[in-house]
Amino acid sequence: MSTAVSPLAPKTYPEMPEIEGVRFATVEAGIKYRGRADVLLMQFDEATEAAGIFTRSRCPSAPVDWCRANLAHGKARALMVNSGNANAFTGKKGRAAVELSAETVAKALGCVPAEIYLASTGVIGEPLPAEKFAPVIDDLVARGAPGPWIDAAKAIMTTDTYPKVATRTVDLGGTSVTINGIAKGAGMIAPDMATMLSFIVTDAPVGAHVLQALLGESVGASFNSITVDSDTSTSDTVLAFATRTAASHGAPEIVAIEDPRLDAFRAAFAEIMLDLSHQVVRDGEGARKFVEVNVTGAESAASAKRIALSIANSPLVKTAVAGEDANWGRVVMAVGKAGEPADRDRLAIWFGDVRVAVAGERDPDYDEETASRIMKEDKIVIHADIGLGKGEATVWTCDLTKAYVEINGDYRS
Amino acid sequence: MSTAVSPLAPKTYPEMPEIEGVRFATVEAGIKYRGRADVLLMQFDEATEAAGIFTRSRCPSAPVDWCRANLAHGKARALMVNSGNANAFTGKKGRAAVELSAETVAKALGCVPAEIYLASTGVIGEPLPAEKFAPVIDDLVARGAPGPWIDAAKAIMTTDTYPKVATRTVDLGGTSVTINGIAKGAGMIAPDMATMLSFIVTDAPVGAHVLQALLGESVGASFNSITVDSDTSTSDTVLAFATRTAASHGAPEIVAIEDPRLDAFRAAFAEIMLDLSHQVVRDGEGARKFVEVNVTGAESAASAKRIALSIANSPLVKTAVAGEDANWGRVVMAVGKAGEPADRDRLAIWFGDVRVAVAGERDPDYDEETASRIMKEDKIVIHADIGLGKGEATVWTCDLTKAYVEINGDYRS
Repeated sequence: MSTAVSPLAPKTYPEMPEIEGVRFATVEAGIKYRGRADVLLMQFDEATEAAGIFTRSRCPSAPVDWCRANLAHGKARALMVNSGNANAFTGKKGRAAVELSAETVAKALGCVPAEIYLASTGVIGEPLPAEKFAPVIDDLVARGAPGPWIDAAKAIMTTDTYPKVATRTVDLGGTSVTINGIAKGAGMIAPDMATMLSFIVTDAPVGAHVLQALLGESVGASFNSITVDSDTSTSDTVLAFATRTAASHGAPEIVAIEDPRLDAFRAAFAEIMLDLSHQVVRDGEGARKFVEVNVTGAESAASAKRIALSIANSPLVKTAVAGEDANWGRVVMAVGKAGEPADRDRLAIWFGDVRVAVAGERDPDYDEETASRIMKEDKIVIHADIGLGKGEATVWTCDLTKAYVEINGDYRS
Repeated sequence: MSTAVSPLAPKTYPEMPEIEGVRFATVEAGIKYRGRADVLLMQFDEATEAAGIFTRSRCPSAPVDWCRANLAHGKARALMVNSGNANAFTGKKGRAAVELSAETVAKALGCVPAEIYLASTGVIGEPLPAEKFAPVIDDLVARGAPGPWIDAAKAIMTTDTYPKVATRTVDLGGTSVTINGIAKGAGMIAPDMATMLSFIVTDAPVGAHVLQALLGESVGASFNSITVDSDTSTSDTVLAFATRTAASHGAPEIVAIEDPRLDAFRAAFAEIMLDLSHQVVRDGEGARKFVEVNVTGAESAASAKRIALSIANSPLVKTAVAGEDANWGRVVMAVGKAGEPADRDRLAIWFGDVRVAVAGERDPDYDEETASRIMKEDKIVIHADIGLGKGEATVWTCDLTKAYVEINGDYRS
């Protein structure tokens, strides 16, 4: 397996500020990997509330079931994440493992297990050795510190070639509040190694239902608009936590997402979701190109998104991008196979700012050389205008390279 | 691009008998390729009737539109197929090209253009130089002969590594009748090179509506149950022709598909469809493994087929097969992402005859070594039992290898 950092990785990492009310530490518990941290424990102050969005898989992992159940009350005292084992398709043993894990953490923190959130990423179908948490838990709790956040991001990596972090500090009713996010995934969506996990923490005094609304309004255009290989993990998880500690510095309690004082925060929250989701695609297994697919002129936004995903998931479009080939015929194919309303003779397609096809045929001004130059860039924008209505959508993906096949053909053995 | 014959190719080709009422010839017209036949002309006797099934793409090629329109009357005097150019997404020029092509053939044969069927496969978006047919058409007509069929199969190849033929001779009301079929495709479905075309010809005295019914009842379990890369061509075409010449040898005219005298023919027709569709998968671009996916226990047959296709189209399942890795966790993932009713804790999965998972977890008797041995075979059978109902489906695919990426990343340039 390649260990080189993705050529699409960010050139610099932001300085991640501390957030009052959260402390964390990582440890090497030997779940699967050797010689690297594989457990992250994040402790939260008592007033912390939580929200979450999960995989749509009909076969979700045991930790996903566990978190979904706990969100009913929205209280959170800790998040524990392990890499190396997904605790998915592990049957009764899986349920027992999440219970034991949560009890272990709850006992060390003096709270109830239902306030402990869990996420696991790694191999499917192997029982999670949850008994390995007990020997390290007291040390993990004792070492809890407000930073460095980059270490938290590193501890949850699997096939990721770089840690993923994002931060924003904004004004909330006259007081500065912070949002920090981390993510892992190298493949939005892949069952073994590249499950997408993201955790967002803020000190803003917002409750669980506001957090849930923030996730709900931003996930569609971020984590649910990225694809590496069209495969959906059993374990995809985005959790948001608010320690609410900024209230002691004068930040107002916000109880409704429509509150205009939340506007800057809302925008920053969405930016972090988008930023982290793009970092996941840029670390797509074997990726050499970051691809944005814009669809306009569809009959509805939902129709536009289905067409955009049809393009973004097409192995033939993705291999053409890998080959730096402006093969717009494959884009026509992908529009056609989406099953959405489309009229061949109204379709127009651009690579970057070069219109390659219009009104159902090759653009008369099409210039292969210019198109080829665009295909050599790191970021490729494919735009398809369907010519029927006003529906628009944007999704992001990466190219499909031999390295993807190598990584995924060799992984488990 | 690799030119080696697929390791999954049939070891022998059947002897293809002649069929009274059809004569054909091939020629090198220089559409795109050099040094190989790229046009096939099949002439039919006057009583010939036709039926067809086409791509579901919303952006079909000009020849697909043309054939669909002609099937209204069901009469056929000729089929002309070219490889190298798909005449898809070619706008008004594409319509003009099919009209010119049909007129050229009709004039040479002394019939009307609407009795000429056309199929094109190759690059999308390039205008088809239909004027290249006129200089060769009289020679093509004059050289029309009842064989050899293998040459017809070769002339329609694009990225195919071997020609695809199948034949059956059966009894129809006391008289022997024959069905011959040819196909091309190396990807069920791929827009440039690997469009799936298949042509089936019989001397049985059956009319267009019986042929259409035969196609309709057999295509679902054959050509519509194969996938190489989940990409649907703009040009997929299956046409069936009946010269009806066996009537002069005593074969009865059959006017309804339910006629019991048609039973053997019906079965043979379905066998040819299945045989040819499997040959397409076995020539899948870069394929090294032929994969059968069986789904049982789904809530309905339609649900079973969607789950089976979710497994068969999963890049992670396909790369695991390429890596000879019995990675059943990826099968769980693919069941989960299908969006169909499924219960993790009732799911069971087999590779070959080895049950690897049962009741929501790894089979207690699972033996990695046995599973690994099975994965080394040429043909891999993946079976998922959903445990909810009686819905069943089988689909066929191939593995996803670096050679697929190579073929499709390099093709157009």
